[in-house]
Amino acid sequence: MPGKGVKRGKGKEGGAGESAESRRGFMLAAVEEASLGVRNGDGGPFGAVIVRDGEIISRAHNMVVALNDPTAHAEVLAIRKACRKLGRFSLHDCEIYSSCEPCPMCFSAIHWARIPCLFYGCTRKDAEKIGFDDNVLYKMLRGSYTGSKFRSVRMSREECLKAFELWRKDTKSIHY
Amino acid sequence: MPGKGVKRGKGKEGGAGESAESRRGFMLAAVEEASLGVRNGDGGPFGAVIVRDGEIISRAHNMVVALNDPTAHAEVLAIRKACRKLGRFSLHDCEIYSSCEPCPMCFSAIHWARIPCLFYGCTRKDAEKIGFDDNVLYKMLRGSYTGSKFRSVRMSREECLKAFELWRKDTKSIHY
Repeated sequence: MPGKGVKRGKGKEGGAGESAESRRGFMLAAVEEASLGVRNGDGGPFGAVIVRDGEIISRAHNMVVALNDPTAHAEVLAIRKACRKLGRFSLHDCEIYSSCEPCPMCFSAIHWARIPCLFYGCTRKDAEKIGFDDNVLYKMLRGSYTGSKFRSVRMSREECLKAFELWRKDTKSIHY
Repeated sequence: MPGKGVKRGKGKEGGAGESAESRRGFMLAAVEEASLGVRNGDGGPFGAVIVRDGEIISRAHNMVVALNDPTAHAEVLAIRKACRKLGRFSLHDCEIYSSCEPCPMCFSAIHWARIPCLFYGCTRKDAEKIGFDDNVLYKMLRGSYTGSKFRSVRMSREECLKAFELWRKDTKSIHY
């Protein structure tokens, strides 16, 4: 996973209160989801489950093709389902198990959902080997990728800041 | 926007075929969305529109609070809407206008949607000043953030690779 700021497990599979056996079971559920997705033709071979108090509260697999939605990655869908179930936008008391190291979109979604603990199986390089852009995206975000034709232009900042001003003055603003 | 791999506009507001006036209009529509979201109490002060052939085909604002969905950022919602409208998961022939520089989740969603051109107003630092984590996330992904308690553990890679193998052998696999 990304960078120095993230504590990595080194060999030992330490988890937030779960036994190694439970964790293995959760990861197998994530792989089952991934395989189900492939068999259904729903999208890429990626699955994820979210666990709270030792129980799976949501599971999902990649549905990009089935839903015609490029954001329908396993982790994003699992986060949405878990939030719907709990009726809140924070999953600070949950863990996520992903069959593959999340792409930067999913890594960021996990962060926005305030999930403090991630377990993952395959790596971004494994994903690259079967044709997915996860690693390219990591490189783009780190500024070490030179092959992109993507174009980004800043404009009208002063006008855009007005919405920020509105937010800053709004006493009812809810932070997330 | 992120890194060396991304071509930045330098001062001039070059766009893919649109006049400067049109582009300004699209950006104002994104800011209007952002302001609407604040007034409704739907979420943070962020709006986005997607343009194809000189016309806005989708618009959205942040709905994290309204939907209890931490992934419901303006860009993600606008991408989903545009894909639903066009009936496909690729927006390779579109541009996106965002009232603020996209967070890494949205930046990656734009990449997964194959949108080749982004216009944005406020910056990640402007967002940081009103309390949003965009810049922290960029730092985490670059490995230059040391304040995170986020924990990431790799496990069961061999078992997880089985889903990749299934995908590799599946002759019906659709790449995205």
